[in-house]
Amino acid sequence: MLTQAGCRERVGGLLERLRGECQALVLADPRHVGYLSGFFTNPATINLHSQSFLVVEPDGRTTLITDNWQAGTAREAHADAVEIYEWYNEMAPAQERYRLAAQTLLQCLRRLNLAAPSFGVERSALATGAAEGIATEYPDAGLKDIWDVLVEMRQRKLPDEVDCMRRAIGACEAGYAAVRRELRPEMTEFDLYSVAYAAALREAGEPITAVGDFISGPERTAAAAGPPTERVMRAGELLIMDFFILVGGYRADLCNTYAVGGRPSDEQQQRFAVLEKALTAAEERLRPGTPTLEIYRTAEATIASAGLAEGFWGHVGHGLGMDHPEAPFIVRHSDERLQAGNVITVEPGFYLKGWGGMRIEDNYLITADGYERLSHHVKGL
Amino acid sequence: MLTQAGCRERVGGLLERLRGECQALVLADPRHVGYLSGFFTNPATINLHSQSFLVVEPDGRTTLITDNWQAGTAREAHADAVEIYEWYNEMAPAQERYRLAAQTLLQCLRRLNLAAPSFGVERSALATGAAEGIATEYPDAGLKDIWDVLVEMRQRKLPDEVDCMRRAIGACEAGYAAVRRELRPEMTEFDLYSVAYAAALREAGEPITAVGDFISGPERTAAAAGPPTERVMRAGELLIMDFFILVGGYRADLCNTYAVGGRPSDEQQQRFAVLEKALTAAEERLRPGTPTLEIYRTAEATIASAGLAEGFWGHVGHGLGMDHPEAPFIVRHSDERLQAGNVITVEPGFYLKGWGGMRIEDNYLITADGYERLSHHVKGL
Repeated sequence: MLTQAGCRERVGGLLERLRGECQALVLADPRHVGYLSGFFTNPATINLHSQSFLVVEPDGRTTLITDNWQAGTAREAHADAVEIYEWYNEMAPAQERYRLAAQTLLQCLRRLNLAAPSFGVERSALATGAAEGIATEYPDAGLKDIWDVLVEMRQRKLPDEVDCMRRAIGACEAGYAAVRRELRPEMTEFDLYSVAYAAALREAGEPITAVGDFISGPERTAAAAGPPTERVMRAGELLIMDFFILVGGYRADLCNTYAVGGRPSDEQQQRFAVLEKALTAAEERLRPGTPTLEIYRTAEATIASAGLAEGFWGHVGHGLGMDHPEAPFIVRHSDERLQAGNVITVEPGFYLKGWGGMRIEDNYLITADGYERLSHHVKGL
Repeated sequence: MLTQAGCRERVGGLLERLRGECQALVLADPRHVGYLSGFFTNPATINLHSQSFLVVEPDGRTTLITDNWQAGTAREAHADAVEIYEWYNEMAPAQERYRLAAQTLLQCLRRLNLAAPSFGVERSALATGAAEGIATEYPDAGLKDIWDVLVEMRQRKLPDEVDCMRRAIGACEAGYAAVRRELRPEMTEFDLYSVAYAAALREAGEPITAVGDFISGPERTAAAAGPPTERVMRAGELLIMDFFILVGGYRADLCNTYAVGGRPSDEQQQRFAVLEKALTAAEERLRPGTPTLEIYRTAEATIASAGLAEGFWGHVGHGLGMDHPEAPFIVRHSDERLQAGNVITVEPGFYLKGWGGMRIEDNYLITADGYERLSHHVKGL
């Protein structure tokens, strides 16, 4: 879970970037509420369509607004104050959550007693109803969009965020370990997804969100991405498993390629070795300041030099955090550079119609002078 | 999946209720986009924070707006037109989805060429940025809130919606069948959740969202609700399993109580029989026009007459559909009445601190002259 120190540092960093331009911030996007308070709605419950807000005062004091079904989770989070609205008490019909949340937000803002206020909001996430409520209450108030500031900040993870990602990666790796044990010819892609999900769920020890690409066979692999199907896998085929997982707001995204039946051909082994070489070559460039294009070109050159240029397309990796994908992007048309605090995936692959596809992937933290590999799943056919 | 005929009927019903008050509707809530077009974003993928819109013209013509990663799903849905914006093409950095969606929405509205337009929107779901775009483009346009009209409509399900719920119920029941086979003393609540999830996933054949209350033992059961924990279950204890699931936009919500170790005591059996009697007594009142309070009082009276009044609290049931819970509510302070097309749960229970709790639950469709029980899982200790 995100720490109190981390939340305070993120709130402070956000206010510093805004340089006093806003007298109060109203966060509505569940990612950003969590980012600054550690409060994450479990997306897999009756709270799926819930509405919470985080109000940030100029001195960094935070108030979390949520409903009575999430009161316990809210009190364990790191907001300085919690305001609960009663959505459903099992004795009277449930009320409309969004509307109650907006009303509670206005009550909270009134108590702040701001003169000629200006508010920082996410125009992409704040609902019209809530924004109109603010505009009616404060007709002279400006609503400054702080979305891009938040998205930019999120590229550089603090240590507590990296710890959340380590936890997601651990659950994801449990999925890979289970698949390595249980993969057999005649299983379907969906069978294997079930195996991976169950293992990841058990390792996480809480409800998770986890899907991915499970792509087998000489034709289907040419697509490079797609959810698991009922396709039966045969001995000798390749399976790309790119399993991604969301635990408590943060993500993992790993990949491996398996030889179904466990006896890879010489050609399969040789080509898998090309990917390992591409990943190693990319790793050697992982440090602050490296253009992501350089990493892309490195992987591309390694794969092309093995005569597989025609099968190389798509991205070589991307940032990862509360979103998947997020900046920086390791693609052919990017002028981004790596920064310390980025968590990225590197996932070289190639896809040959009629033969099959291969991809491997690890997750990395960019450190002050290089990188730390965060993932340790077994990559190998 | 929702049918084209069903989507057309819902669009028509919505327009009829609005009686020409709006020249175009802009739906932003993912539930309502799905309700009227059959397009559902899988919540368990990288599309978790995606943004789609559905535009409805006065003649019922619909345009679905979504990103390039969901183009295939969009084209299988039942909108008359699909507009795709390019969010991420794996060659250049991904763009901001909400902003692209709002731009595409405005382009779409411009093509409609409306004079002095009025728009029906969901003030609770439409983001401020998109609403401001509309207001800038059409400074004289009104934005009428149609949220309550949609929520009211959704109480009466059409046959294709009931079919979606049957599918969710089938997956949920697979979870119960697996638990009945595999429940053993010394398992944890979380172990059992994993068993239920894996079976439901396999039955659904697509990524699902499924959590629930898994509450065991004489003390913990007094809480009546809560996610599975690592608590080890002992022989002789009771376990309330209230497993709810979301498949393709629609929900199931079932419950049973198990005697861990499989040998219920006489007292446990007698008390379980009280719940069966309460459920049967409630069922006899399921028809259009029945006050939900009458169903509540019936269950309450049955449980009280067995001397268990002190353990009776909370709701006896609620509506179910795209939300959980939704109207009508079978609670002590409701003046609602059942309507044909409601899908409801009935879930009598009692909770005795120091002894344990019991609850059972089925899902029902209210028909023109009675009800159809939609669920067929084995209820029994």
